Amino acid sequence: MDSSEETVRVNLGPRSYDIRIGSGVLAALGPALAAMRARTAVIISDDNVAPLYADAAMASLKKSGVSAGLIDFPHGEANKNLATVAAIFDRLFAIDPPIDRDTFIVALGGGVTGDIAGFVAATALRGLRWAQCSTTLLADVDASVGGKTGVDHPAGKNLIGAFHQPRVVLIDVDTLKTLPPHELRNGLAECVKHGVIRDESLLALLESRAGAVLACDGATMVELLTRNVEIKAAVVSADEREAGVRAHLNFGHTIGHAIETLLGYGGIGHGQAISLGMVAACRMALRRGLIDEGYALRIEGLLGALGLPVNINALQARGVLGPDAVLRTMQHDKKARAGGIRMVLPTGPGRVEIFADIDQSSIRDALGYLGI
Amino acid sequence: MDSSEETVRVNLGPRSYDIRIGSGVLAALGPALAAMRARTAVIISDDNVAPLYADAAMASLKKSGVSAGLIDFPHGEANKNLATVAAIFDRLFAIDPPIDRDTFIVALGGGVTGDIAGFVAATALRGLRWAQCSTTLLADVDASVGGKTGVDHPAGKNLIGAFHQPRVVLIDVDTLKTLPPHELRNGLAECVKHGVIRDESLLALLESRAGAVLACDGATMVELLTRNVEIKAAVVSADEREAGVRAHLNFGHTIGHAIETLLGYGGIGHGQAISLGMVAACRMALRRGLIDEGYALRIEGLLGALGLPVNINALQARGVLGPDAVLRTMQHDKKARAGGIRMVLPTGPGRVEIFADIDQSSIRDALGYLGI
Repeated sequence: MDSSEETVRVNLGPRSYDIRIGSGVLAALGPALAAMRARTAVIISDDNVAPLYADAAMASLKKSGVSAGLIDFPHGEANKNLATVAAIFDRLFAIDPPIDRDTFIVALGGGVTGDIAGFVAATALRGLRWAQCSTTLLADVDASVGGKTGVDHPAGKNLIGAFHQPRVVLIDVDTLKTLPPHELRNGLAECVKHGVIRDESLLALLESRAGAVLACDGATMVELLTRNVEIKAAVVSADEREAGVRAHLNFGHTIGHAIETLLGYGGIGHGQAISLGMVAACRMALRRGLIDEGYALRIEGLLGALGLPVNINALQARGVLGPDAVLRTMQHDKKARAGGIRMVLPTGPGRVEIFADIDQSSIRDALGYLGI
Repeated sequence: MDSSEETVRVNLGPRSYDIRIGSGVLAALGPALAAMRARTAVIISDDNVAPLYADAAMASLKKSGVSAGLIDFPHGEANKNLATVAAIFDRLFAIDPPIDRDTFIVALGGGVTGDIAGFVAATALRGLRWAQCSTTLLADVDASVGGKTGVDHPAGKNLIGAFHQPRVVLIDVDTLKTLPPHELRNGLAECVKHGVIRDESLLALLESRAGAVLACDGATMVELLTRNVEIKAAVVSADEREAGVRAHLNFGHTIGHAIETLLGYGGIGHGQAISLGMVAACRMALRRGLIDEGYALRIEGLLGALGLPVNINALQARGVLGPDAVLRTMQHDKKARAGGIRMVLPTGPGRVEIFADIDQSSIRDALGYLGI
């Protein structure tokens, strides 16, 4: 194990767990599960990630005396659905000797894999323990904290799911080196979000070391990930079921999610959509006098430096992105409550608040700023 | 509301809820949900029960200002599977205006309906509140307490599911009058079980008032249900996740469940199978000197008086029920743990204990007593 390993505790009472971040930390999978008295484990991974890391994960488990099986599924958000879950169940319940209540599920991959494998763990035998081995920056800083699991339905994203906390999360920064650049940027958008909602110094770190970040320098990534995970863990610990401050994590997501929905899954990266959503939210905050123009431009500049879009000029398929369509989609979002659109807006460096009095004209103005 | 309404509180900390038992209590659905600030509700019911009671449930909701929809599904354990859940999701997410996180799911029916609707509630939008309106005796005294939800898989019963407590349970004893006699007996087997594991005086009540029970006399059923629900609630409150004393509820189920599996769902009633399992467990306890023969015969006599089988002579399809097949099935049960078969045996009137040192010869002896 690299000496630079860091551990962040997610405090959720009896559901608390550790997130371990470091170079080579995937090798700790077997010892971690053995320490929790697991005798059997089933790794769930997609057909992109399994060829890269399943052997190492299996070897670690077997070396610790944990017998392990592997179930893979076709990669991609398009397969994050109930049919994939059903196919995984068919294989899970055919394993011999049969799984039992002590069996661990291991999610090995990015956000889609964590969502699917976590949901399988939540619902197999009415709840199995699970471990998350995250291999993408987006999953590292976002999906690895919070216990959200689930799949999409044709009517919308993540409509089917459960809250089910993992028992341990392992983030091996070495796996980031196999990550395509656009996947890296997806995660960086969430890092910027965390800085905006809680920690101005995280913005400064991203600004001063953008090059090392984009090159996935090991020590830099351990520091970056640790600070991001700490922020998300603090928010989630304070509000596990998303009743209050956890909504701050929706910064950039209200408009961003609508853009993502309109362009179709795969039509735009999640991080690209959130980047646009953050630019729009900053614009709305500026117009309300919550922040000054220097801060709004600073966020835009950082997003641009990290290779994220700040308007739709660089996007394909932008024709469907009219302001009416975006507004309509926002109103159909599952998080919408009676009484209008709520949005999270910055109120100063490292600070945000929830605003319930969002009028459509301010959204149209911000969309116009994006070129929509 | 009838003056004889009773309420049993299930104490599970923040997941505590009331079970309300009485004549006409289904009319309390609307006020109960309105008091929990529900604005919309979706009733899930099968095609047997919906024609009988959905109108009354919808009317109660609408009268209280809760807008209500109805989703029905084909009745029977054979439909308790992921395909039915997927079909319900398709209809649930097509409702207009869309459901939101404040929407209540209402299970209207027996155990299968509660299992399916509860699982839909557990997994729609990562968890919706739900109410259970129970219409069968088995669901009243068993499934209404404990928060177990889920569906079957070809590899076994209840392999897919979640623990998800309802917010309120309404048991309207009037609905028992439309229940077929064999369904009534299914529930009575669980009543006998509760008496054996916790309360000798419940056995005395069943013995002295068997006629009124079999005729579903209103006041008698309110008393019977209240006492049964209190017993199950006390056990579940002490052990929500089934780690310890909740295993006492498996009395009669280890052998009974194997018989049920061998005869196929629908080949024998759940209550009939559990009746046989209880007779066998009493026989094993007698052979170990845990109870005297008078008590074993008393249980058999009560089961017989309630119309439940005490040996396989009255059963069809008994050819497949060899002792080897039963033993093999017991060993494949999902609750089996390494180290042999565990069983709950009576140790005196109203008392049971878990025994881990069960040898096969004692099971064979008890199966022989059943005629297997």
